[in-house]
Amino acid sequence: MTQRKRKLGRGVAMVGAGMSAFGIRPDVTNRELFAEAFLDMVSSVDRGFDPQDIEALYVGNCGAEMWESQSVMGALCADVTGLTPRPALKVEDACASSSVAVREGIMGIASGMYDMVLVGGTEKMSILPTNWTTMALACGSDTTYESAAGFTFPGLYASMATAHMERYGTTHDDLLRVAIKNHNNGALNPKAHFPKTIKDVMDMRKAQAKEKGKPIPNWADEMEFLHDPRYNPVIAWPNTLFDCCPVTDGAACILLVADEIAKNFTDKPLYIIGSGQASGHNLHDRETLTSIPAAKLAAQQAYEMAGVRPQDINIAEVHDCFTIAEIMAIADLGFFKEGKEAATAAGEGKTARDGIKPVNVSGGLKCKGHPVGATGAAQVVEIFQQMRGEAGARQVTNMDINLALNHNIGAHGTTAVVQIYERR
Amino acid sequence: MTQRKRKLGRGVAMVGAGMSAFGIRPDVTNRELFAEAFLDMVSSVDRGFDPQDIEALYVGNCGAEMWESQSVMGALCADVTGLTPRPALKVEDACASSSVAVREGIMGIASGMYDMVLVGGTEKMSILPTNWTTMALACGSDTTYESAAGFTFPGLYASMATAHMERYGTTHDDLLRVAIKNHNNGALNPKAHFPKTIKDVMDMRKAQAKEKGKPIPNWADEMEFLHDPRYNPVIAWPNTLFDCCPVTDGAACILLVADEIAKNFTDKPLYIIGSGQASGHNLHDRETLTSIPAAKLAAQQAYEMAGVRPQDINIAEVHDCFTIAEIMAIADLGFFKEGKEAATAAGEGKTARDGIKPVNVSGGLKCKGHPVGATGAAQVVEIFQQMRGEAGARQVTNMDINLALNHNIGAHGTTAVVQIYERR
Repeated sequence: MTQRKRKLGRGVAMVGAGMSAFGIRPDVTNRELFAEAFLDMVSSVDRGFDPQDIEALYVGNCGAEMWESQSVMGALCADVTGLTPRPALKVEDACASSSVAVREGIMGIASGMYDMVLVGGTEKMSILPTNWTTMALACGSDTTYESAAGFTFPGLYASMATAHMERYGTTHDDLLRVAIKNHNNGALNPKAHFPKTIKDVMDMRKAQAKEKGKPIPNWADEMEFLHDPRYNPVIAWPNTLFDCCPVTDGAACILLVADEIAKNFTDKPLYIIGSGQASGHNLHDRETLTSIPAAKLAAQQAYEMAGVRPQDINIAEVHDCFTIAEIMAIADLGFFKEGKEAATAAGEGKTARDGIKPVNVSGGLKCKGHPVGATGAAQVVEIFQQMRGEAGARQVTNMDINLALNHNIGAHGTTAVVQIYERR
Repeated sequence: MTQRKRKLGRGVAMVGAGMSAFGIRPDVTNRELFAEAFLDMVSSVDRGFDPQDIEALYVGNCGAEMWESQSVMGALCADVTGLTPRPALKVEDACASSSVAVREGIMGIASGMYDMVLVGGTEKMSILPTNWTTMALACGSDTTYESAAGFTFPGLYASMATAHMERYGTTHDDLLRVAIKNHNNGALNPKAHFPKTIKDVMDMRKAQAKEKGKPIPNWADEMEFLHDPRYNPVIAWPNTLFDCCPVTDGAACILLVADEIAKNFTDKPLYIIGSGQASGHNLHDRETLTSIPAAKLAAQQAYEMAGVRPQDINIAEVHDCFTIAEIMAIADLGFFKEGKEAATAAGEGKTARDGIKPVNVSGGLKCKGHPVGATGAAQVVEIFQQMRGEAGARQVTNMDINLALNHNIGAHGTTAVVQIYERR
């Protein structure tokens, strides 16, 4: 397929962004999580604005039918934020739902239909026991050929990880170093599901053993702790517990406006200069297991639209639902070469917060949490804060962030969205 | 809320449309239904085209998570139609899912991102027993305040019907005449779920009685038959069986292109000149039960964008999930006055196929069937065929159809979409 160069008829900027606290939130519903994100977003708009000027609402949600017996999440989120009767819709593309919602909102403005739209997502997942949630999430794979055969997502990504190990000599320690790095970041994120380093967790386990009068394990470092199957059991080899993102409740949203009015709201708007989206075959029918073709293509589209190269991007939020996913992502995005270079980037500090290419400074899905329908929007919230220098203790300080990118995968790569943001 | 006049940056035309057979389709999945609609659409494009030129796919689907344990319907429909790796997404707004998909596709083209997109929807509903399907559909109401209290859709629409009776003196016979009219139309639609008039059904019941050696009921006409509770039982008063649309499997899709290239594909493109969408409060929290405010607002937006009035519209496909819904629709659209005038329009022949304002010449949701995620797109397929004079035995012949409209409701009115189509 030859693709013409994409160009929007009108520029779009972000002028506000907010998120709920991520974690286990037994006291709230999806729409209440969204309202929490909405209020946080409202307070982020420097010069303030009248929420009644919002013209439409795009909400990503993956599975409230299954978790809450609730569909029509768009209209419900409009209701709870006082935005009825604006047009409101729900997008579902599994774990990429809210990135697709963001992209649709961009096109809504670029089309001339709207000047200001609210985009975001919400997911309340902690209602069911984890095994049921795993089954609900498996609806995102191919029911006919994958989940019906017993595959769930830890297993699907495990297949990619073992293929990567076989092809490139990637080790389980390479995977675990992604988790260590992302927890180092997320420990500084007050809204993260697990705001702890893995060293913190290790020390906590030692303290618990002491408290119970049990022998205190003498792990030398995090890696030794992570090698202990009593504390980090295998879920689907090589995915151990600490290779997997948690089941999280949360919501996030962003205020988009036509770029010609952006300065009415803030001196620091951020411009969306590139957007790519692609679909992919299911895993059982895919040409490779060591990269995600849809992500490569979405990245290529986004770079072309933005007129920038991978090396121009300062920071990136990428889809690390499992540790192998980040290793594939940073290769698919062209940051590192597929194989050993990408697999060792975290261990070598290249993707650390103070590295040459900081990746997932929010903590990523792994540590910040992965409320599936909200994740893409939450990535953008982190980019919004980092680019404006408002990320607090986890602010990247070793560079000016002029270009940032988010990369969000739906399911096992049947959808991918990559978007590029510019500070001018 | 004051709303600025909406205007798209670029015009959009329809050059192809197709649908699967509607009905109980035990042999196929959602994606196979979509493929069937896709092939029908391909054959409708007068000068042919290369499907590989399609740049994106927008799929409406309401509940495949619940019926098929399958989400990500966008990517799956791309896969089955050979459109991977195009961007593909799923929209869910209950029974308005595919109308919202159509509208998003329009904005995708108007934004400059795409020149050609495929929009549509699919729903496979007959998998579960009807009582479970009714519960699955109830996820479209407010789970916290409505379905949790025992409300399902026959009951929600029954509340609107009894309110209409109380306020305007509407009778159950007024409702039933909508069903009789729509079955008269659908009997001529070879793809309808029930291609039979109610008289056909009555005669069939008589023949069955005779065959079984039972007393043959001597109903004088359809209305007497419909008054017989043995054959037309109450579901939720005043909704009897024949006031309710069936549970249907089906899919439909439309090929949209930028208007400057429309003539490459056909001499008879149809132009989308008006599009409106609005959200509404849930029924328990709504200011009226005798109309759907979101539909009124969506209609107003569509008329304003198109620069036309209700009386200019030649034919309309409207959302008759229950007979009362059509009576409210034709008032909300401004065709007839809310109350007695709208309630008696079907009985007086005004909305008949040869009436002054033909409504649901396809048979409507009532007779053609209501595969919820496909319904909006299927309405547009009927409009495509009628405006091009290709509707066969049910073609409207007493007027030139220059302007047509479709009206699609999500849930009990939390979403409404109205779009207007022009033949030039």
